[in-house]
Amino acid sequence: MGFRPGLLFNRPGDQSMKNIGKSLLFLLSFVIASTLVMAKPLATGTGHLGVIIERNAGSVVIVDNIEHKILKRVSGLGNLSHATIVYSKDERYFYTFQRDGWINKVDILYGEVVAQVKAGDNAIGGAISQDGKYISVSNYKPGDIKIIDSQTLEILKVIPATYEGGTGESLQSRTVGLVDGPENQFYFALMDAGEIWQVDAHPPEFKVVHKWKDVGDYPYDALLTGNGRYYVAGFLRSNWVVQLDLWNLEKGPQKVSTLDPNLQSPKVPMYKVPHLSGWGVTNGKAYVPMISEERLMIYDVNDWSSQGSIKTYGTVVFAVPRPDGKEIWLTFAGPKNDTLQIYDIAKGKITKKIKLGKGVMHVQFTPKGEAAYVSVRRKDKVFVLNTYTHETIKELEIKGPSGIFFTNRAHVLGL
Amino acid sequence: MGFRPGLLFNRPGDQSMKNIGKSLLFLLSFVIASTLVMAKPLATGTGHLGVIIERNAGSVVIVDNIEHKILKRVSGLGNLSHATIVYSKDERYFYTFQRDGWINKVDILYGEVVAQVKAGDNAIGGAISQDGKYISVSNYKPGDIKIIDSQTLEILKVIPATYEGGTGESLQSRTVGLVDGPENQFYFALMDAGEIWQVDAHPPEFKVVHKWKDVGDYPYDALLTGNGRYYVAGFLRSNWVVQLDLWNLEKGPQKVSTLDPNLQSPKVPMYKVPHLSGWGVTNGKAYVPMISEERLMIYDVNDWSSQGSIKTYGTVVFAVPRPDGKEIWLTFAGPKNDTLQIYDIAKGKITKKIKLGKGVMHVQFTPKGEAAYVSVRRKDKVFVLNTYTHETIKELEIKGPSGIFFTNRAHVLGL
Repeated sequence: MGFRPGLLFNRPGDQSMKNIGKSLLFLLSFVIASTLVMAKPLATGTGHLGVIIERNAGSVVIVDNIEHKILKRVSGLGNLSHATIVYSKDERYFYTFQRDGWINKVDILYGEVVAQVKAGDNAIGGAISQDGKYISVSNYKPGDIKIIDSQTLEILKVIPATYEGGTGESLQSRTVGLVDGPENQFYFALMDAGEIWQVDAHPPEFKVVHKWKDVGDYPYDALLTGNGRYYVAGFLRSNWVVQLDLWNLEKGPQKVSTLDPNLQSPKVPMYKVPHLSGWGVTNGKAYVPMISEERLMIYDVNDWSSQGSIKTYGTVVFAVPRPDGKEIWLTFAGPKNDTLQIYDIAKGKITKKIKLGKGVMHVQFTPKGEAAYVSVRRKDKVFVLNTYTHETIKELEIKGPSGIFFTNRAHVLGL
Repeated sequence: MGFRPGLLFNRPGDQSMKNIGKSLLFLLSFVIASTLVMAKPLATGTGHLGVIIERNAGSVVIVDNIEHKILKRVSGLGNLSHATIVYSKDERYFYTFQRDGWINKVDILYGEVVAQVKAGDNAIGGAISQDGKYISVSNYKPGDIKIIDSQTLEILKVIPATYEGGTGESLQSRTVGLVDGPENQFYFALMDAGEIWQVDAHPPEFKVVHKWKDVGDYPYDALLTGNGRYYVAGFLRSNWVVQLDLWNLEKGPQKVSTLDPNLQSPKVPMYKVPHLSGWGVTNGKAYVPMISEERLMIYDVNDWSSQGSIKTYGTVVFAVPRPDGKEIWLTFAGPKNDTLQIYDIAKGKITKKIKLGKGVMHVQFTPKGEAAYVSVRRKDKVFVLNTYTHETIKELEIKGPSGIFFTNRAHVLGL
């Protein structure tokens, strides 16, 4: 475990304290140093701030998306490979969900870790409840989700993802696709069991209120559509996605085919598992990357009818709609990951291919869409592009950048 | 003109300085007092803050929508009847657009006015450009819009809303429905001329790039659909609305009938001009209040086809969708303004009628939708309701409350 700076909450007896007891001297010196150097918070609104993960360095940078500059770097967070974050409702704090099972709570005004907890051995994602009181982490190992107090990071509830194996034995599944939904609910999928569960995020029970079984083989991720109505899960080994209509839960998950009779596209290697967080949902349509195919499938989210497919340059990892919905920006896995492709929804075709260097991965638009931030990992840069002219406005020096998260996500269900 | 506190920017020669020169002594004493009392900014994120207009008192309150409490009151702003505000992109500042033509720029962390300008004699609304650099005000008197530097409040450009009268004379129209659109454009309508104009918010020209004429009689307001695609204007004396597709500007404004052959509803007095800002657009449908009728018209925003109407309790002023889109909450004009009605989209019917007292007007949901703030003017209260149970969580004592604006609006085109 790396050095973990800035634990300012003294909560004897919790897991994090036990784990970092041995680092106390380092910690103390850090706290003193940070008091001298960074005691003053930023006097700033927080609506224009964002966090970019420095995947290999174990650090994150806090950026200003008006001036397009780095404000602070927060280091020593641990293994940030595949790390994701969520924001507190007030945009003051963010929470990291890390491959090493640690969760760091960072004060964005001070650029300091204020609490931390080890909530598993291998985490894949997290969410924050609609009321902001609870965060939840989905773990591969142990197969569970945990409900955690967002103030103190105290673990309030462990929900093991148990299921019955082929010979009747009780197993624990990896969990994926954890999101917050309306009425303070969490939804997630059991990767090894092919199930979707709903948890009511009200204390003290945090009850599992629904378990839907046999939804498909190996769900790998899920999302909530922008309006918070549908929970949609994708599968590694089934030719469908499922949609769960949160307005009509009694209907249960409905299967929607991912086959397109009009566009046979050959299978290619699966370089990377696509992200459902990267599905584009805009203007009543969902743009869904196909597993091991160079194809995006389009659905009408009102009735989940197929609207055909788009042939893409490579296998899509992220399909990110512009905030005004006119275009979808695409990034790719494997050998084609040096390229960004733009699909124009109004014109119904690919209009642009931009090469930015190896490791083009995450795209996030500023909230109103005037600029796009693009991580290019092998270049140690985030390119800030003018959304409309595609000119580079700024290159930010960021070590092995991956996920980019702006604070406006704090206000959207499912993010 | 009332006393205007807290002008901290010394900008000799601008309009506001000329106007408040005579208040200098008051001003000085206020600045000193405020330095003593409020010199420390709030050390806080700003994602959970909001502003509520105290219409008759000439003040606004800054609220916290997590704890549901009043943080500060900012007084002496002038005539706030029909006042509206927009936020800076960083959520640090808000700008008031007032009936008396004044614009106040308020620092939300200090609760203080930091700049002000008189930009007309009678203003009806305002907008902030996508890039955040310019605000724009629409005036009834003089009939124009003005483009103003969002930092300094310097007036950069006056755009008179000129049109040709019946006998060829040049007249100036009242302007309404001013919004910011993608690619840093402003759109607005000329009430007396029946025109829609587009302004390119790039200096130094701030050029009027389009004028669409003969769109209808007496446009009274307009909106941008949530995805930023359609600019839609309503008319006092035409049986249609128009939609302008910003993806296909060459098509120009298209008329969409407001008549419903299947629901003849009698004409009632027009107690109040409805707000297009109060049109509900959610899940691909627009819910549009009809002028002088107790009816909401439903359109499919993909093709603007009529989807029928909903018979309502009174003439609708605001139709506000829940953030998860499942319900529309309605408020009414005239004698029925003591009531809130809830239309359930999933069930396709009115499910609830709640009486809160005379002067129920504005409804704003918290960003993720767990609570609804409702202004009840004659009770001098804002009720905070649990969105799902409709229980009152809190009653805030606010003098003659009208508009309620949360900071997440900073991140949405058209708000």
